[in-house]
Parts: sequence; C-alpha cells; structure tokens
Amino acid sequence: MAKELKNLTKRSDNYSQWYNELVVKADLAEQSAVRGCMVIKPYGYAIWEKMQHELDKMFKATGVQNAYFPLLIPKSFLCREAEHVEGFAKECAVVTHYRLKNDPEGTGVIVDPAARLEEELIVRPTSETIIWGTYKNWIHSYRDLPLLINQWANVMRWEMRTRMFLRTSEFLWQEGHCAHATAEESEARTVEMINVYADFAQNYMAMPVTIGVKSPNERFAGAINTYSIEAMMQDGKALQAGTSHNLGQNFAKAFDVTFMNKENKPEYVWANSWGVSTRLMGALIMTHSDDNGLVLPPKLAPIQVVIVPIYKNNDGLTEISERVKPLVDELRSKGISVKYDDADNRRPGFKFADYELKGVPIRLAIGQRDLENGTVELMRRDTLEKETLPLEGITDKIVKILDDIQQNLFKKSLERREAKTIEVDNYDEFKEKIEDGVFIMAHWDGTPETEEKIKEETKATIRCIPLEGDKTPGVCMVTGKPSAQRVIFARAY
Amino acid sequence: MAKELKNLTKRSDNYSQWYNELVVKADLAEQSAVRGCMVIKPYGYAIWEKMQHELDKMFKATGVQNAYFPLLIPKSFLCREAEHVEGFAKECAVVTHYRLKNDPEGTGVIVDPAARLEEELIVRPTSETIIWGTYKNWIHSYRDLPLLINQWANVMRWEMRTRMFLRTSEFLWQEGHCAHATAEESEARTVEMINVYADFAQNYMAMPVTIGVKSPNERFAGAINTYSIEAMMQDGKALQAGTSHNLGQNFAKAFDVTFMNKENKPEYVWANSWGVSTRLMGALIMTHSDDNGLVLPPKLAPIQVVIVPIYKNNDGLTEISERVKPLVDELRSKGISVKYDDADNRRPGFKFADYELKGVPIRLAIGQRDLENGTVELMRRDTLEKETLPLEGITDKIVKILDDIQQNLFKKSLERREAKTIEVDNYDEFKEKIEDGVFIMAHWDGTPETEEKIKEETKATIRCIPLEGDKTPGVCMVTGKPSAQRVIFARAY
Repeated sequence: MAKELKNLTKRSDNYSQWYNELVVKADLAEQSAVRGCMVIKPYGYAIWEKMQHELDKMFKATGVQNAYFPLLIPKSFLCREAEHVEGFAKECAVVTHYRLKNDPEGTGVIVDPAARLEEELIVRPTSETIIWGTYKNWIHSYRDLPLLINQWANVMRWEMRTRMFLRTSEFLWQEGHCAHATAEESEARTVEMINVYADFAQNYMAMPVTIGVKSPNERFAGAINTYSIEAMMQDGKALQAGTSHNLGQNFAKAFDVTFMNKENKPEYVWANSWGVSTRLMGALIMTHSDDNGLVLPPKLAPIQVVIVPIYKNNDGLTEISERVKPLVDELRSKGISVKYDDADNRRPGFKFADYELKGVPIRLAIGQRDLENGTVELMRRDTLEKETLPLEGITDKIVKILDDIQQNLFKKSLERREAKTIEVDNYDEFKEKIEDGVFIMAHWDGTPETEEKIKEETKATIRCIPLEGDKTPGVCMVTGKPSAQRVIFARAY
Repeated sequence: MAKELKNLTKRSDNYSQWYNELVVKADLAEQSAVRGCMVIKPYGYAIWEKMQHELDKMFKATGVQNAYFPLLIPKSFLCREAEHVEGFAKECAVVTHYRLKNDPEGTGVIVDPAARLEEELIVRPTSETIIWGTYKNWIHSYRDLPLLINQWANVMRWEMRTRMFLRTSEFLWQEGHCAHATAEESEARTVEMINVYADFAQNYMAMPVTIGVKSPNERFAGAINTYSIEAMMQDGKALQAGTSHNLGQNFAKAFDVTFMNKENKPEYVWANSWGVSTRLMGALIMTHSDDNGLVLPPKLAPIQVVIVPIYKNNDGLTEISERVKPLVDELRSKGISVKYDDADNRRPGFKFADYELKGVPIRLAIGQRDLENGTVELMRRDTLEKETLPLEGITDKIVKILDDIQQNLFKKSLERREAKTIEVDNYDEFKEKIEDGVFIMAHWDGTPETEEKIKEETKATIRCIPLEGDKTPGVCMVTGKPSAQRVIFARAY
C-alpha cells in the first residue's frame, strides 16, 4: 500500500481526479450502491463528528436548542410557498407506496399497488415547510418568541451530477429555523449565524472565508436575502461553505403563523434559516491537502499525534513501549488525541505513508537510538519538516506545534486567496483571467440579466457581494451602468 | 397552565391516556402532519441527546467507530436474505420517482411519470443489507477484522398503530454492525453489547432490566439468535428496550462477504447487529413518572437543578439574584446543570408546577426570609419531599441528593418489578393472573406452537429466556412436556 499511496494523482496534473482519489484513499468516503449517495467511512465520519461537536456548542452558546422533525414532507406542504416549490420540489425522492409484497410471478418482492399513498410524501430536501407547518401550533404570543431551533439531519436532493461530499443526493447537515417577533431581530439572527459559520470556518477549519450577500439569482428559494460564506479552493474555484437566509414573513404567510404582539394585535412571524452540511468536508479536504494526501487542521483531526516505534525485535519494542506509555498519558491529560501504533503487521515506512495520507498533524518516530539519546523524531504534516527533539519537555512542545500548524494552515490559505484575487474592470480581460482560476473583484450593474450573461459566457457566477472591504462605486464592466461596489466573481463547486 | 397541569389523567384511571398526555404536556414530542411520525420537541430531544452522548461513549470504549450509510436501499438488496425480507420488506416507505413537475391542469405539483426509477428504493427499516453490501468491499483478509461499526440514523417502518416514542413510523436509533473472523468472537460481541445496553438502562435510566434470549418466534429476521433487555413498566407490561442479534453467516452468505483466514483459506464472515432507539424515551417516561408529570433520573435530566426566586419587588429579586449567582457558578463547577428561572411573567406557583411536570430532579426556592436566615427550600421530584436547608454547604448536599435520587428511582423500580413478578405452574391460573399486569415466570416446552397458543389466548408473549437466575427444569404449564427453565411471560408494548 505504501507504494499505492504514492500513486495519488498530483494536483497539478488533475485537481479534480486528485480530489476524488484522495477521498477514497484516505478512507473518508466511497460511492454506495445507491446512485449519488455515499458511504461516509469511519475516518471521514470522525472528522464530521468533530465538526458537529464544535458547531453544536457554538449554536447552543447563542441560545439555540435541538429538535427533530419528520423525514417525509407531504407534497402539498412544498407547494405552499410559491418560490420555494420552484427551487426545491422538483428533483427529489418521492414516496408513493407504503408496502411491498411477494412477487406472484417469481421470486423477490414488488410494490403493492393496493398500498398507494393518498398524498405522496417527499424525502425532505430542506425542512422549512414541515417546520413552519409545526410552528403554527407552537407560536401564539410574543412570549413564545424567539424560537431558536436547530436539527441535525439527513436530506435528499436528486442531483444529476454528484461528487463525494461536494454534491451528493443524500447529505448530512444541520438546519436552524428561527422565529422572531420583529424584522430587525430576525435580520440580526441571520447575520449572527453567518458569523458563527465564519468563526467556525476560520478558527476550526483554518479556512479563510468572505462573508457576503448573495445576488437575487443565487438566493435561497423563498428567502428575501441570503448571506453566505465563500472560500477559495486550491484551484482558485469558490466553494459556498454555509448560508443563512432571512425569510421575511414568507413562510409565516404560507403557513399562516401569526402571534399576538405586545399591543395584542395579530402579526405574521419573522423567520430565518441557516445551514452547513457534509459539504464542509469537501471544503476542508480541498483547502489544505497536498500531493501526499490529506492535511488536517489539528482542531478537527481525529488523531492529532501518532507515535510509531522503530524496533528490531520484541525486546526493543517492549523497551520503547515502556518509555512511550507515560508520554501518551501526558499528552492525553492535555486533551491531545494520540495513537500509539505498535501493530507488528505493518512496517514503519508503510505506517508513515499511511498517516501522511490520513493527514495526522504530528508524527513521532522513536527508535532504539532515540531511547539512548533521550530524543524523538517529530514530523509535522503541514510542512513535512522533520526534527529530532529531546523527549524531555516534548509535551509542551507538541502543544505549541499543534497550535502553530493550525495558524500556519490558515495563513497559507489566506495568502493563496490574496495572491489569487484580482481586480478587473474590463470584460475581455475578465474572460481571459477567469481561466486562471482566480477570484475576480469586478463591478456589476446589479441586474440578473448581466449576471446571467456573464455566467453563460464565462461559467463564473457572483459568489457574493462582500459585507466588508472596498465599497467604492464604479461602472459595470459589461454594461457600463453604475455599480454600487465590486463583487466577487468566480467559478464555483 | 398551572391548573391545566393538574388535569393530567391519573395513572390509575387510564395508564395509556396518562402516557399520551404526559408526552405532550411535558413538551417531549407531538404528532406531526405526517401519519405515524412525531416531532421530537427541544425538551424531549435534550433527553435523547444525553442518552446518545452516554451510549456513544460506551460504544467507543469497546472499540466501536461511527460511520454513515445511505438512507435508501435498493429493493433487490432487501430480498437477498430470505428471512430478512419476510420480516422487513413489507411495511415500508417506497421511493418510486425522483421528480415532481408543475401540474399542467392546475396549481401545485404532480409526480413526473417520466421520472420513474428503474429499481424502487426503500427507506431503510434497518441497514443490514446495505451495510453488508458495502462490507463486501471492505473485508478481504482476517487482518481487516473485526470491523466494529455503528451508525446513528433515522429509520422507517410503516406501522399501522403508532404511539409516540413507543412505536412510530419514523424513529431515531443507533445500529451497530460488526464483522468477525470467528463464530465465537461474534457471539462474544453480541453478548458484550447487550450487556452495554443493560449497563446503560440500569445505571443511567435507573431502569432494571432482565437480559435474556428471545424465543425463535421473536427473533430478528435473519438472526440465528437474539438477545434482549426487557423492562417492566408501571402497569406491569413489558417493554423490550434493546436487542443484540447474532446473525451467524447469514448476511455474509447473502452478500457473498468472505475473508482469507490465517490459513489463507476463504471463509464467510460472522456478523452481529445491535440497536436501541427513541423507544428508550418511552421506557424512561413509563418507568418513573407519576401523576404530577415526568420524573427523570438525574443522569439524564437536561436540567438537574432549578432555582426559583420568590420575591415581592425588583429590589427583592436583585438581592436574591446576587446571592444565587455564586451558587449557580458553584453547582456548574461540579458539572451540575442548573437553571435560574427569574422570568417575571410567570408566578412561582406556575413555575413549580411546570418543573414538576418536566421532571427536574431538584427544585430550590429562595425567598426574602431565606436570605435573612441563610436558608433555601429544597424539593426532590422523586419523593416530592421538601426541606429547608442552610445555604452554607448546599452544593455538596445537592451532589449527594442527586445521587440519592438516581439510586432511589432504580430501587423503587426494582421493588415494583419484584412485587409484580410471580411464578405460575398452572395454565388456568396463568390466564387469570396475567390480567393483573405481571411478569409470569413459567415453564414452556420450547415449541413455537405452544408459544403461539399462549399468545392467542392471553395476549402474553415470551419476553425472554433469562440468562441468569433459576435454571431448574420443569414441565410446560400447557402441554406437560419437559421445560429446560422458566421463561418470562408478559403482555408487552
């Protein structure tokens, strides 16, 4: 396998193939027998669990509670909000029957035609409709508000072209659904949650993101405004990593959810929803990994430190293990996850390659000579640099290096994004530069028509209208009409 | 609402109605707009999260890793294992189409007949088939074994008669699926996991359970042996709270999963699967709760201590709050979850009734006079006993009382089970006694026919053949044929 690992396609040769291979070779996920659906393997799931754990804590710190709503949504619910049904009700898994029966003409089972549902049920593509149908019974007075609820769930969208983690028919996500008494409060919550996502992306995933507003074309179906965080992958393409939607009163009106305000008058409730998904796994992989395999930020690595003994015989191993045991205990007492790999059916070289492929941030190798010298060899995954260090005081050093790796990964990504972000004012130049894989800051006249034209001609879309940064007005590079500020154009995953 | 709470039906009047009302009134769950599916509300979900958290830790301590497999299973997969399809493939949600389209003859959307799936997909009722279909690619050599994997997921079984938590069409659960190189190892894991469940039931849920083997009639479809933990509810009915199945080589054969053993010969893999579900919520509610509402064991209570200030005016509240703040901090530093309810829109009497209904283990009330006297009033939910205690040293006292409540709930349930468990040797007496709501330890000849006859005539089933306890042989109370040992008969949820 050590050899096989080396066969990972290089990013420079074929970035897309590198990604697909890496997902499988690093044991993150694989295609399942069901079209467009993946199996998330234990190592990949362990990373997702760490993401969930941190996000869940961050949500709860803002007052959000978890709940669970049904998987299946009555077809009629999807039709209640006019724009929503256009955006979501089309490509989805439809349950039409509730029973199978033995095939009278052969072996196996067939759908029982007698068990047809009166109304078809849709496997949720997102849960606004079923949740707002439920909130109608929960909200009566301003005292019931705000309602701050999240669910961790699987959802399904029947995608034609799928890629593991990035776009799969079934995916895992969280969806927050808040109800408020005022437009201002709902807008503030919408912004608060996109900031939570940005915080998570930057401080846990070590992935720089830009917070911005989506153009009307790219808005969530049924929202009055969508915020997103946008990240740049190593190939210069953009990846939308999280969204937060201000839904205004659209869903409250569609599901007739009103409350008595403080003046005792009925009023429609204000809504927002926000979500991130297993797509973040794709973003994480594509932001940091290299031609040797996965590179994981320490804060999300299932194994932060692996220790590999180098020994000639059983006595040697015993001696090393005795010295390593207190080190493992000490590291664990600092909250560091450690694996001591003393398996005797794989050689050290194989182990080294495997843990590189899996992105373990720090590898310690310890041999007979190290025992004599009181040293250990440390390799950090982000730079692949090795150094021999005294065993004495190694724990504190490791704490420091883990923190340094976390910072370094963010810094590298930020520098790459800055190097690959350019300003362009001329549409011909835009068409040329977009081929290089860059973010282009350009002026746009604010119309869907111009955006659509650019998309058709260059495959680039407006990723977002950034909330911060240069707000100087200008003129649209395509139409020459006035532009309020530069927006980010890029090709996107 | 304080009045409304008192309207909870008494257990002695109608146990079943008491349960249904309690689930709703305590804000645990409610019926959704989708037939047989429930919404798990935030308070109910918080208890489920605590269960998940503890179970997940226990599983991982035995070497299990989490993963995620697809929601939808190709129909043909279900048919591979002959018994399995009989047990599971019948009442289930069937996805037949993948697209909706605008209704040409009206508003709304209809199923697009052009988007019919070649092969129908089934919403998983359990995942043995899709998982063993996947394991085929993961297992090649004895070095790949054991494979110890669990998933937390939603599943769906189209139940005709549903009751919240106890039997719903969609429910949440975990399903472990292990693969082993030998029959012995697989059997040992099957037993290990039923013991983990018993440990959790008894030490976290404070619910005594009997570990036993299921009779062939009650075995999991496709298993060679099923272990279960059986608990007694307050009405004397049994509730199967968890199962662990030794699947032998049935699924390995159905999905052709072989491995090269140490002698380099191909061999079918040995399998087991084990699961608990949101049904545990129903068991928890029915084991401890009373006519005043929910009673929660401290280890699973989302709020362990609630503090209610009793005050006349704002100055009074400020003074109490100042004294309470360090107490809250101190309790939290001991890992105790505390809520200080200083909301001014609900009177103390209302709050008392509400927290009783919600099963908060300890309630502290603190008023002006308490401040003067340096005291606090403490009520424990299990006994409803109140006592006035010095504020000084109250934290240590609370730690002790929480532990005592946990023990006391287990003790009470165990005593009830013992009082309601009887030995019967005569079938006429059996028919009479079973009406009282008891567990009957009786001799049975080991045949499915006799079991079926008893079930038809008395609605009682064999809950399990206990692994421990009296192993004296005897004669079947129905047929007079030899019996290896007494088994537990009861009516069941």
